[in-house]
Amino acid sequence: MNYCSHCGHTVRFAIPDGDDRPRYLCDACGAIHYQNPRIIAGTLPVAGKQVLLCRRAIAPRLGYWTLPAGFMENGETVEQAALRETREEACAVVESPSLYTMISLTHINQVYMIFRGTLQGGYAAGPESLDVELFDEADIPWDALAFPTIERTLRHFFDDRRRDRFELHSSEIGEKERERYFGSA
Amino acid sequence: MNYCSHCGHTVRFAIPDGDDRPRYLCDACGAIHYQNPRIIAGTLPVAGKQVLLCRRAIAPRLGYWTLPAGFMENGETVEQAALRETREEACAVVESPSLYTMISLTHINQVYMIFRGTLQGGYAAGPESLDVELFDEADIPWDALAFPTIERTLRHFFDDRRRDRFELHSSEIGEKERERYFGSA
Repeated sequence: MNYCSHCGHTVRFAIPDGDDRPRYLCDACGAIHYQNPRIIAGTLPVAGKQVLLCRRAIAPRLGYWTLPAGFMENGETVEQAALRETREEACAVVESPSLYTMISLTHINQVYMIFRGTLQGGYAAGPESLDVELFDEADIPWDALAFPTIERTLRHFFDDRRRDRFELHSSEIGEKERERYFGSA
Repeated sequence: MNYCSHCGHTVRFAIPDGDDRPRYLCDACGAIHYQNPRIIAGTLPVAGKQVLLCRRAIAPRLGYWTLPAGFMENGETVEQAALRETREEACAVVESPSLYTMISLTHINQVYMIFRGTLQGGYAAGPESLDVELFDEADIPWDALAFPTIERTLRHFFDDRRRDRFELHSSEIGEKERERYFGSA
């Protein structure tokens, strides 16, 4: 951020009075520009013993497999965002979604919220997917998953299914685990 | 938003190519400025039969009672944000926090994430609180709560406690319910 989005003046990065961390401040109009994490909402669609994955048609991680998920938009609930992304990326409907993994990515300021639910009806590749397929556990392309959040969510799912007990998993993915996917660049 | 925060040029509000909703666009540098919901993280601190509430020392809703909660910051997990707000507003520590209510406020683009946990040790009013107190259910100041999210979280808690079964509650608060608190202005 270089300029105040309100008045167009240059901003400086400093701790406001009464605050404890630096923000982008506009000395011309007094605006304080807060920056906060963004939510990525998606689903884990389950069909019998199989789960649905999408192969990405867009960067980043083009060609890698993911769960349908994307940035939550203003004006929708977290659950609505998850179901919208599922419609858009997999032309699919998920019933009875319940929050299953909440994963904070602290160094890129994202929070993943993945809902587990039942795939209802058909599916097809939306414009952001090359392919959409159902996978048995044995066939999951573990080495070709797009993001560590997807791997973690799938591992929780198959573990929980083995013990027949599903619960919300809340965790963090830090820089080290991301480097396995993206290198240290 | 009037100006591009990257280059300082004026922005326009229009649907980018390949998108389906309007964004703030900069024709000078090509930046697309996405706007997304923000997370408000907090706790429901439980001490035996009582819960802890804070009376707000700041606007909005100065003088009204709330659970310790505030905007999640970059660089922290949702849970860390909830515990930090609890420290700051109530000088309190909550143990074994688990996500309890997730409430989307679709017309102000916020998502409340409140963690239920056990109050550990003492408490006191932080700089943003006039007062911090423990309340029995019978003494909850229902008519002097700061936000509908707080009322909903407390009602879930006392209902769940009666049936001795706590679970994650995911819901939405729309304009009508907010008007009960803030009027239609």
